[in-house]
Amino acid sequence: MVKHVMTKGEPALIDRIRRLAGPTAAVALGIGDDCAIVRPRAGEEWLFTTDMLIEGRHFLRHSHSPPQVGWKALARGLSDIAAMGGAPRFCLVSLALPGWADQAFVDGFYRGLLRLARREGAPLAGGDLARADTLFCDIVVCGAVPRGAALRRDTARAGDAVYVSGALGGSALGLALGHGPAWRRHLRPEPRLALGRFLRTRLDATAAMDLSDGLSLDLHRLAAASGLHAEIETPPIYPSASLEQALHGGEDYELLFTVPPGTHVPARFENLPLTRIGTMRKGRPGVILLAGKLLEPLGFDHFRRS
Amino acid sequence: MVKHVMTKGEPALIDRIRRLAGPTAAVALGIGDDCAIVRPRAGEEWLFTTDMLIEGRHFLRHSHSPPQVGWKALARGLSDIAAMGGAPRFCLVSLALPGWADQAFVDGFYRGLLRLARREGAPLAGGDLARADTLFCDIVVCGAVPRGAALRRDTARAGDAVYVSGALGGSALGLALGHGPAWRRHLRPEPRLALGRFLRTRLDATAAMDLSDGLSLDLHRLAAASGLHAEIETPPIYPSASLEQALHGGEDYELLFTVPPGTHVPARFENLPLTRIGTMRKGRPGVILLAGKLLEPLGFDHFRRS
Repeated sequence: MVKHVMTKGEPALIDRIRRLAGPTAAVALGIGDDCAIVRPRAGEEWLFTTDMLIEGRHFLRHSHSPPQVGWKALARGLSDIAAMGGAPRFCLVSLALPGWADQAFVDGFYRGLLRLARREGAPLAGGDLARADTLFCDIVVCGAVPRGAALRRDTARAGDAVYVSGALGGSALGLALGHGPAWRRHLRPEPRLALGRFLRTRLDATAAMDLSDGLSLDLHRLAAASGLHAEIETPPIYPSASLEQALHGGEDYELLFTVPPGTHVPARFENLPLTRIGTMRKGRPGVILLAGKLLEPLGFDHFRRS
Repeated sequence: MVKHVMTKGEPALIDRIRRLAGPTAAVALGIGDDCAIVRPRAGEEWLFTTDMLIEGRHFLRHSHSPPQVGWKALARGLSDIAAMGGAPRFCLVSLALPGWADQAFVDGFYRGLLRLARREGAPLAGGDLARADTLFCDIVVCGAVPRGAALRRDTARAGDAVYVSGALGGSALGLALGHGPAWRRHLRPEPRLALGRFLRTRLDATAAMDLSDGLSLDLHRLAAASGLHAEIETPPIYPSASLEQALHGGEDYELLFTVPPGTHVPARFENLPLTRIGTMRKGRPGVILLAGKLLEPLGFDHFRRS
């Protein structure tokens, strides 16, 4: 399905992507026809997310290696599947390439993307290729859950405990520093897929979403969608990050979730801390109180350079 | 699933898109969560295609109205579903908006897209929104066929008759003229969905694809994928188009298909002519002979201005 030949020379590019992707048992017909063909299993619901990654907006050409760009493009989509408790099924990639993106870039991009795709069981089933003035990538990820089982953001209930995984603000700190462990964390986000499935199957979480745009904005969205307000305390902060980075910094890709009162939540899931930060309450939908004071939903790319 | 708020003001934009899209019975959870949730039916295979539409490459801002851009973005994806004999199920839209794309543009874009989506039964289930320097759209269309029934491009057999629908070169002519019926045809392509299903269910077509990049290149691809060569005569030409436009002009979105020798193919399907143009033969894969002479696969954007 990577089908739009860009120049007469570029069937070779499609062939190379197909070889890099390798055979995929879950996909009946992959790269090369008008469409990819895939076979749903009985009783499943399928989850679909699309995520754009744009040069100068979501990554910088000179600070992200080609494999890092590919990894990040897919990680963003997988994080949405994780947030709903899904298991990845396949992915599709549309890629518009500017002049500077040579064969080494394309190979590196797909290598980084396919490394994560293989690890998480999301084979590349197809996509589109085009030329453009800046690099533009759109990733589609399909995941699956049993019918009716997907974790949503609009189903938290008053009295539910609010949790986050990991420590927040690391990605924003890394972006500000440009080096060190926090920077590597920014470059190589980890979708919390195993945790998402654990929340769905073991904890009976009432709602979940991923922290892509910052706790203040994402919790605001969850609370607004559920028609509730939230009262929280200071969340766990990534070492050396500021409170502001932890509250408003984007791209941590940790999970934010709610569980019924009294649920036993382990302190860690596979070495990842799970920390209670507050409680959902009846009240003005979307309002967040941090230690009793109004927390503005400032999140999003507040901390991005571009 | 249109979920990435671009600025604090833009939940309003997501809400407007959701209202324009309306309720969709086929989609369990649509716009607004991390993922869209959809329910496959038992025994179906699902087809997926992604198609990019980029300002200055696939459309020109000053010659395409916003509804025309939205229509065309979806029509390109639906044409891929038609080519495999599928029935549309839903679509997803990722849209990166430059500064000039105001609320009127966004409303017009989604109105044009949704008009076609409703007509063809492809409800908008979600997508992504971002800012960019040029307008960039990626459309994902899902369609369905019974298991194993999809029309492919790699399954033509030696001796099969080669057909095209409609008349070719109209879109390239329209692009060259910039006005008149051919121009309107260029602006508003018609995906041949009913014809695709007819080919699959009534004609037992052996292979099919849509003519997006020109007959010479697309037939070359079908022949190469099937390991055959093709011998053809002059195809039906759109009124006033040149032979070159008919052979190499892109974006006609007619269907190219093959049927076993002796198949009765009606002269018309719902007023659309179906014309035999040649025969698939054993020989050097991908080679096309037009009236006995080698036809180079020149297609693609040979005729595009940008």
